[in-house]
Amino acid sequence: MSKQKEPLARTKIEEVLSHTSLQQDVCVKGWVRTVRTSKNVVFISLNDGSSLQDLQIVATPDQITSAVQTGTSLHVIGQVVSSRGTAQSVELQLKHMSVLGEAIDYPIQPKKHSLAFLRSLPHLRFRTHTFGAVFRVRHAVSYAIHTFFQERGFLWVHTPLITTLDAEGGGEVFRVLASAAPGTTEQAAETFFGQKAYLTVSGQLEAEAAALGLGQVYTFGPSFRAENSHTTRHLAEFWMIEPEMAFANLEDSLQLAKALLQYVAQYVLAHCPRDLTFLEKRAADVGKSMGTLSARLEALSSRSFARVTYTEAMEILQDAVQRQPKKFKHPTITWGMDLQSEHERFLSEEYFQSAVAVTHYPQEIKAFYMRRNDDGRTVACMDVLLPGIGEIVGGSEREERLNRLETALQERNMPAEMLHWYLDTRRFGTAPHSGFGLGLERLLQYVTGMENIRDVIPFPRTPA
Amino acid sequence: MSKQKEPLARTKIEEVLSHTSLQQDVCVKGWVRTVRTSKNVVFISLNDGSSLQDLQIVATPDQITSAVQTGTSLHVIGQVVSSRGTAQSVELQLKHMSVLGEAIDYPIQPKKHSLAFLRSLPHLRFRTHTFGAVFRVRHAVSYAIHTFFQERGFLWVHTPLITTLDAEGGGEVFRVLASAAPGTTEQAAETFFGQKAYLTVSGQLEAEAAALGLGQVYTFGPSFRAENSHTTRHLAEFWMIEPEMAFANLEDSLQLAKALLQYVAQYVLAHCPRDLTFLEKRAADVGKSMGTLSARLEALSSRSFARVTYTEAMEILQDAVQRQPKKFKHPTITWGMDLQSEHERFLSEEYFQSAVAVTHYPQEIKAFYMRRNDDGRTVACMDVLLPGIGEIVGGSEREERLNRLETALQERNMPAEMLHWYLDTRRFGTAPHSGFGLGLERLLQYVTGMENIRDVIPFPRTPA
Repeated sequence: MSKQKEPLARTKIEEVLSHTSLQQDVCVKGWVRTVRTSKNVVFISLNDGSSLQDLQIVATPDQITSAVQTGTSLHVIGQVVSSRGTAQSVELQLKHMSVLGEAIDYPIQPKKHSLAFLRSLPHLRFRTHTFGAVFRVRHAVSYAIHTFFQERGFLWVHTPLITTLDAEGGGEVFRVLASAAPGTTEQAAETFFGQKAYLTVSGQLEAEAAALGLGQVYTFGPSFRAENSHTTRHLAEFWMIEPEMAFANLEDSLQLAKALLQYVAQYVLAHCPRDLTFLEKRAADVGKSMGTLSARLEALSSRSFARVTYTEAMEILQDAVQRQPKKFKHPTITWGMDLQSEHERFLSEEYFQSAVAVTHYPQEIKAFYMRRNDDGRTVACMDVLLPGIGEIVGGSEREERLNRLETALQERNMPAEMLHWYLDTRRFGTAPHSGFGLGLERLLQYVTGMENIRDVIPFPRTPA
Repeated sequence: MSKQKEPLARTKIEEVLSHTSLQQDVCVKGWVRTVRTSKNVVFISLNDGSSLQDLQIVATPDQITSAVQTGTSLHVIGQVVSSRGTAQSVELQLKHMSVLGEAIDYPIQPKKHSLAFLRSLPHLRFRTHTFGAVFRVRHAVSYAIHTFFQERGFLWVHTPLITTLDAEGGGEVFRVLASAAPGTTEQAAETFFGQKAYLTVSGQLEAEAAALGLGQVYTFGPSFRAENSHTTRHLAEFWMIEPEMAFANLEDSLQLAKALLQYVAQYVLAHCPRDLTFLEKRAADVGKSMGTLSARLEALSSRSFARVTYTEAMEILQDAVQRQPKKFKHPTITWGMDLQSEHERFLSEEYFQSAVAVTHYPQEIKAFYMRRNDDGRTVACMDVLLPGIGEIVGGSEREERLNRLETALQERNMPAEMLHWYLDTRRFGTAPHSGFGLGLERLLQYVTGMENIRDVIPFPRTPA
């Protein structure tokens, strides 16, 4: 029997790999990624989520049992030694091991599983290298966003998810009913809030009210769309970041969006080098025109953003169709139409080969709250397009003039009563203000190179 | 005409009050809080949300118009001068002013409005001193929570809001239907996700799956309860923080909860002294037994937490009824009953006079996922009670043994199919793990002294 004093406290694998001294005994716990057995030696790769890199455990065959398989969770005590392999500088010479949980018929085996297959196991894919890397990067990006706003004096406001607005004049929304009890009528279920209730499509309107009092605010929370879209770019539930600034114009929002995107790119480069290198290898065939993931992020973080008005963009596109000639699926480019995804990609990937801000869209194709320009036909808005992704940011000056806002609602047949509280913010001490929305998952697709948006959110919600 | 060169960039009022040098010209923008007019001088208090303190603008009567009223938004250029008043060290001598937005019949006048009245104007109450202070503190607490976890290597995971679980075996949930189009049948609306969908009551189960791969994670997001509760402590939509740690036991969770609460208390004391002092004056009559707000926070941040098992707590309560005698509304104290609010308050406010962790509750009154103790009748759980608030944290070791978990589901008549994915985490490489939930709004009630939970969230959602 071994002499047991105080049990050795657990050390995270990340710390073992980077900070422990040789010959030290450590206790680690984690999940087996692979087991390689030869006549005299067994190599176990163990991962506990603290790092991309596994810890290699070296044992003799008699020290392990058949329960030690891919997926098994282990409690291991061993001595840190220099590794004879080249893949790691240290490894653990096994002294004592116990199995915490077996993994018989574990569905994720050490072979190339398709992302589609892993998508069917969202509760288990956290234990793979790819999704470990993705979700560590997701965390890093999210934390960087909070830090960015903190440094600039913005307040995080938690705008409501349940709303009585059934949209912002377009888009499909989810309804919320109070009772799940069978047999409850819809009418009874709707009395909970005293009126029909929906899941929000954006926290912007409430964020505007907050900014027109607190100055600079941002939201960071879930939004919902009931669109029946089966694409690699749409989710029914996704996370949005929506800063809003009082006394700010379009230029301020554009500068803020640029600073935010560049901050995130720099943060990820500085804080996630290993996860990024791993994802880069995975995504070697992705975003060819932009080179590697880190080249993408370097470019985003250092290059200026191209600037073009919608009207200029239309001329560029018309010119491309006529002269190059560029083949679009939608080759008819007329002023007033919305930009299609292929047009956005042409502008950012081919024409400018950088991030592009397209400003001053026709008011008919933009939301009621965007500020009308003096030309009477465009609004003070911007879309930021990224190569390989397309639109990632949409923002505008907000229409702060009560009468203009009321006209915009009328033009869209939107009932002003529903927005009475919102109009109040223009009735009483209205002020110029501006902001934008950034989709977290789109940004993560850009940063991680994952092609399907369902692979950058833990439990994707999409139509069946 | 004045010579106009480059327009003077706007300075935040917080910066004018703390960082500008005398005689300097500055541009500020904000909302008028009060106007005091005498024969030769007009004093305008201006606030832009950047600080609790208003900037005093000194003008002559001919410099202003009748449009300058409480609520009006102004663009002001003036010279920073020493204040002759005692309420501030500097003030602004008006040079130029323009009205950005009038505020005719502005409902929030410079008099004591009740919080209930302001609750009817959630979109405008951001512009009051009280709610400015509350929401700055809400931001500070939220940011502190992220920083706390960042320093400890936890990953923020965004667990889904839309779920197919109709509860965790109790509590009422909201249903989510896909289409808002009139005339859509419920059945059609439900085909969106291919099954019935609900709004989550907790991200814990998904956070467990994440922890059993990533190691240490936490959620920070909205949760929903369709309870028809009209109290000062309940919201239909509220924000929760739920850390979850692999390879951790109850003691680890309790230590983490204590460290988190103490970190937040210290952070607010260090970063929000002015807002805290203001709220303290407001709340002078609140939490008498705990003294002032800052005394509360000092106590929380420095004192140890009392520890007691549920069984010991029952003995203390029985003893109090018999000996003191303490009058409870529920004077019959029997093992197996849940603690009532008055019992929790007695324990924390009278008996221990500090934060208390009550552990090892009977399994019948706790959730299915809590780990059964060897005594066969209690679970490895804890509730942390704070004086003046009651329960603020609830946590446990999670039942990691598949057969025990299946039994717990059966005992509660919960269908295992619904939780098939959750049981997978125990089927494959299960491991001990532990975590807790903290209600953000309850914590904010404690920190700000606001008595009604509707006054610590921007747009409260409650039953009609």
